[in-house]
Amino acid sequence: MPEQVTAVLLSQGDELTCGQTLDTNSSRLAAWLWGMGVTVRRIITAPDHRDDLTAIIDAAAGLADVVIGTGGLGPTRDDLTAEAAAAASGVDLALRPDALAQVQSRFDAMGRSMADTNRKQAILPVGCTVLENPNGTAPGFAINHRDCRLYFLPGPPHEMGPMFEALVAPDILARHHLTPPILVRIGVVMSESVLEKKLQGLDIPGLDTGALSVGFRASLTGNEVKLRLDPGVPAPVREALVSEIIDRLGSAVVGVGEIDSAAALGSRLAARGETLAVAESCTGGALAARLVALPGASRYFLEGATLYANAAKVRVCGVSPTDLEAHGAVSEVVARALAEGIRRTAGADWGIGITGITGPGGERPGKPVGTVHIAIAGPDGVTHRHRVHYGDRVRVIQRTVTATLMLALQRVRSASASPDSVESAPGQP
Amino acid sequence: MPEQVTAVLLSQGDELTCGQTLDTNSSRLAAWLWGMGVTVRRIITAPDHRDDLTAIIDAAAGLADVVIGTGGLGPTRDDLTAEAAAAASGVDLALRPDALAQVQSRFDAMGRSMADTNRKQAILPVGCTVLENPNGTAPGFAINHRDCRLYFLPGPPHEMGPMFEALVAPDILARHHLTPPILVRIGVVMSESVLEKKLQGLDIPGLDTGALSVGFRASLTGNEVKLRLDPGVPAPVREALVSEIIDRLGSAVVGVGEIDSAAALGSRLAARGETLAVAESCTGGALAARLVALPGASRYFLEGATLYANAAKVRVCGVSPTDLEAHGAVSEVVARALAEGIRRTAGADWGIGITGITGPGGERPGKPVGTVHIAIAGPDGVTHRHRVHYGDRVRVIQRTVTATLMLALQRVRSASASPDSVESAPGQP
Repeated sequence: MPEQVTAVLLSQGDELTCGQTLDTNSSRLAAWLWGMGVTVRRIITAPDHRDDLTAIIDAAAGLADVVIGTGGLGPTRDDLTAEAAAAASGVDLALRPDALAQVQSRFDAMGRSMADTNRKQAILPVGCTVLENPNGTAPGFAINHRDCRLYFLPGPPHEMGPMFEALVAPDILARHHLTPPILVRIGVVMSESVLEKKLQGLDIPGLDTGALSVGFRASLTGNEVKLRLDPGVPAPVREALVSEIIDRLGSAVVGVGEIDSAAALGSRLAARGETLAVAESCTGGALAARLVALPGASRYFLEGATLYANAAKVRVCGVSPTDLEAHGAVSEVVARALAEGIRRTAGADWGIGITGITGPGGERPGKPVGTVHIAIAGPDGVTHRHRVHYGDRVRVIQRTVTATLMLALQRVRSASASPDSVESAPGQP
Repeated sequence: MPEQVTAVLLSQGDELTCGQTLDTNSSRLAAWLWGMGVTVRRIITAPDHRDDLTAIIDAAAGLADVVIGTGGLGPTRDDLTAEAAAAASGVDLALRPDALAQVQSRFDAMGRSMADTNRKQAILPVGCTVLENPNGTAPGFAINHRDCRLYFLPGPPHEMGPMFEALVAPDILARHHLTPPILVRIGVVMSESVLEKKLQGLDIPGLDTGALSVGFRASLTGNEVKLRLDPGVPAPVREALVSEIIDRLGSAVVGVGEIDSAAALGSRLAARGETLAVAESCTGGALAARLVALPGASRYFLEGATLYANAAKVRVCGVSPTDLEAHGAVSEVVARALAEGIRRTAGADWGIGITGITGPGGERPGKPVGTVHIAIAGPDGVTHRHRVHYGDRVRVIQRTVTATLMLALQRVRSASASPDSVESAPGQP
């Protein structure tokens, strides 16, 4: 088995060491490198200090096969990466005509004239490979030092990402004769600790120990299980693994390669040619916003209502004032009325109603902070769920939106099955 | 002038070096330390590897006056911080009864029994100071090594933060006889590069060079200018500085100490006893969601409508089908109708209407992607603004919501002035 390829990541800039800017580049690079089977040994963030940076670059090159640095390629006096990299590897700096042509062409494309200071961005270590930057003025560069190849990329994430994918990743794979692992991403609505329990004792015939690494990633639009498989794992074994995992994770699965439950719901509705309207109270519009944030929402999304005041619930969705009085706004009957009301008034195939207590405060007897009622009205009836979510106001809102999207996704997926009426007959608390 | 106090930050865990979890702890700590006048020399992220970590801790202690480490204090085999810290400083590990009592009391408070593995969290370097963790089971600890004081805190951000503020920051200030600088935060809606231009040549009588450091921070709910002033700067000089900055930044200022424009708008409306309803199209509910995410929204927020389909714009806000036909949904006349319509139908004092093209695609002749029309209807009339925002769909939505909040804030602030009717008379494109 080939020795693991190792990497050190460097990110540079006073804005990072002063806590002004959050370094997302290193985390993204680390995830991509994990997906390639490369092991990151260190992530180092350094200030704009020439001697420090020179020492750090030199030490990093002694620690790993690959170094990837981000930042410090701009035109200002604080942009020291080229200088420090040259000093660390014992070469001079020189103006590179090919790099200068790239910088000039970016300015031409923007219809702006290049300032003298931008020439600095083409002054690079002698002998380096210039890395083209299609999304910004600063070219990157690569050098070899101490049996290590060092790649230096611009700081802005939208510039760094494409350059890594197009120029750095292939170079790493080629130089180390690596066949990239197979990556499978499965969107899930579940925490890492629950996932670990559910995946214990995973044992697939034909899948060697060490041929599989399992990762996890949480984000605001969805969590995912990441499966990294040796390229030699046969397709049937891979499929058996994915099936077993999906079985174990059940209704928490968004989909293979589908991470965002809003996107998964939208694509199902669009495929069915069906429309959706939503009535939210405590989530404030966050559910509608998740759906509309995705291109193509107009294929299925008609309308949302944020009915924060009770008068608005009555007026827009026909919620009964008697029900509000008897059960309170945060109740099953009101959630059902919101779902059915918005479905009717918008003329949609599906309607969703959410009402709850996000805190701080607002609890009632039997209704702690985090209480939410979610109802989904479809062509085949209305279903309802009652949950109690943990956390502060923002977290309760996020968790409620996520739970609602998953419930809607399950409803639409099984639309021909009858509603779960035993669990949630109207009138039962 | 006393020599600057320096710090190195360490964050630990394979989940960080595999790119699974984004390290926000180091960035938060770096910002707090900047606010205290402490200079961060390095941020190092290390994997769960005992010998590496021992060497990193030892080297860090030689580099700075203060080291703050986060992570690696859990009960599992991969939690190596105590072991590595003890090895680096040449002491043994020992079970600390006071730490054990803390761990036990957290479990008691949760009504759960402590597992044997959790005892590990009380096995700490001999001679360390135990740092209490009110929000989790892992106590932190502090040791001295190589003229440096090293603080080790738990990884979960909601545990680390309170411990830093309560125990670490005061200890750093006391040990180095530091009087903390004065910090002033001014919320702004402006990019850093524009800010830099506007603050060039700032020269306040009585303010010495070096007595002021200016920082900047961007976030989804607002950007801010951060002023760090030597504690000796007299109050009148400080006030003159703040006034000058506010003058220069003009209508881009949210407020001193106010970063979130939604909160600033909400507090003005609540103070005036006035109510608000919003009608959004392309922003999908994101504006309403920003307002409802803040506690106390019920004091002033009545209702939101996401009128994505044109039929919904007509039905809910009375937008004229003729206007839709003649001018398109993305037009001044439709924005005004949305604002006036939602204000009327919800019975609110203020109504906001937004319509635009967020992309990808959807552009029309004269209406590129990013075109938005924002109208604000109040007791004294309707104002309108037309903008073209740059970026992808998500960024156009974010920028439109921010621009809308600022326009509304300015309108409410100057509510007794007459509307800017010259700039935006109805019927003019």
